[in-house]
Amino acid sequence: MNCINAEIMKKDIDVIENALRNYLPYEESIKRQEKVVDAMRYSLEAGGKRIRPVLTMEFCRMCGGDVSKAAAPAAAIEMIHTFSLIHDDLPAMDDDDYRRGRKSCHKEFNEATAILAGDALSIHAFSVIADDDKLTPVQKVKLMQVLGECSGYKGMIGGQIIDMENEKRDDVDEENLRAMCAGKTGALIRCACVMGCIAAEADDEIIAAADRYGACLGLAFQIVDDILDVTSTTEVLGKPVGSDKESGKTTFATIMGLEKAQTLAKELTDEAIGILDKFKENEFLAELTHELLVRIK
Amino acid sequence: MNCINAEIMKKDIDVIENALRNYLPYEESIKRQEKVVDAMRYSLEAGGKRIRPVLTMEFCRMCGGDVSKAAAPAAAIEMIHTFSLIHDDLPAMDDDDYRRGRKSCHKEFNEATAILAGDALSIHAFSVIADDDKLTPVQKVKLMQVLGECSGYKGMIGGQIIDMENEKRDDVDEENLRAMCAGKTGALIRCACVMGCIAAEADDEIIAAADRYGACLGLAFQIVDDILDVTSTTEVLGKPVGSDKESGKTTFATIMGLEKAQTLAKELTDEAIGILDKFKENEFLAELTHELLVRIK
Repeated sequence: MNCINAEIMKKDIDVIENALRNYLPYEESIKRQEKVVDAMRYSLEAGGKRIRPVLTMEFCRMCGGDVSKAAAPAAAIEMIHTFSLIHDDLPAMDDDDYRRGRKSCHKEFNEATAILAGDALSIHAFSVIADDDKLTPVQKVKLMQVLGECSGYKGMIGGQIIDMENEKRDDVDEENLRAMCAGKTGALIRCACVMGCIAAEADDEIIAAADRYGACLGLAFQIVDDILDVTSTTEVLGKPVGSDKESGKTTFATIMGLEKAQTLAKELTDEAIGILDKFKENEFLAELTHELLVRIK
Repeated sequence: MNCINAEIMKKDIDVIENALRNYLPYEESIKRQEKVVDAMRYSLEAGGKRIRPVLTMEFCRMCGGDVSKAAAPAAAIEMIHTFSLIHDDLPAMDDDDYRRGRKSCHKEFNEATAILAGDALSIHAFSVIADDDKLTPVQKVKLMQVLGECSGYKGMIGGQIIDMENEKRDDVDEENLRAMCAGKTGALIRCACVMGCIAAEADDEIIAAADRYGACLGLAFQIVDDILDVTSTTEVLGKPVGSDKESGKTTFATIMGLEKAQTLAKELTDEAIGILDKFKENEFLAELTHELLVRIK
């Protein structure tokens, strides 16, 4: 990433990290509940790339909006993402003991606390938007409509249930895989982009463009992940490769072959970068989008 | 309950049951996700007394509001309540196989589906309010502020974590018990009352009165439950009595003795009924409030 873009990234991340801390403050009045707040903070602070909130900040900036208005929706989307990771890691779900190199929430605390911490984060995401003092009521309602639709049974959770149901099936086709991915990965990414535009009070045409950009990026991201599981090494990827094949999982790589999957990922990335032409000062996001694809080379 | 009041109750319940069905419709577009929607519906349809949504409807009516505007918040509060029951029943939490005479959600489906169904219901509660076409944006934001605060870590989930932490302690005092109960039982009941007033665009003084009524009712309800666990029979109660004593749990009955607990429950009920004088056509709710106390006789 070039210097100017790295600078923008750093600025965005600073705002996001600050927002995440400020929206979950230490308060004497909740001392008795601090265990669940500790667990919420533990998982929020585990870091990660903060891709979703960066998208919210950047779409707000590219629409010419006041980026301080994007802080609440940016924090909200990261809270929803974190809640989904906490619940995904539970023994009844993916049963993962580690997440981003640290113990997963239910291992650091316990299962009951992890369930409650996830629940509380998902609710808190809506509170952070509802309680914001910079956004108008109309903006808040639009933000919560999008956040609800993209994270609920029509969006992220819908994708998770399709994924679970697919494990029992041996007839998963590309259409099914696309629907699963549109929910599980795509919905929150689309949501992040659209929320940035709403924070900037952009018009419907711009919102639709951001939505399509997010859909392309989300799908491309998943396809690249599937390809890397076949072509990368454990050292480069930082996690075991070949796990999809081992578990017999249908992925974009297994269903269409590596070459076609790579072509599709490239097409989607090109479309996404093309959409950015509608926005001003789009160099940072164009580079970031490109970087997500070149992971496969 | 007298005839007129029974009629009001029936009317409220009809609106609520209809709203719950309509807000979770069968749609071809979510056919792939139908398993999680089935699980959401299964638990929502399990019934229960619908006390919280009835409170929302009644406070709206008593404030002279258009009760059709209370349908969305009434459905939302029942969705939050149902989500909390689904997660409470999980093996990592209370590990209950049955709920209201039917298999609990994770027994009817499986643990992963129950976790996701609870998650989706809590998110859908916010969507139902955000997407409503009768409420103004200002009302929706106020409703979601109250719903978020009362159901999150400062409210219901806060009470659940205090309850869990208390199980490890032998120094639980009355103050602690009140804080636990204010969160676990009280917060959603307060929320239900306040949301009814917001739906009717009532002023702050009326909202504060409804809030206090809810706090009194929630605490009285819990104290009566604790008393019944000591004084009732399994036949009358429909569930095993003496379970608190058996598990060594500190309750209002064990901490202050039966007589004092009964006096406190009566005082709180009287205060709650007194507050209803501020509202018009309050006979139904006054009778309902009274009925909740006389369970101990």
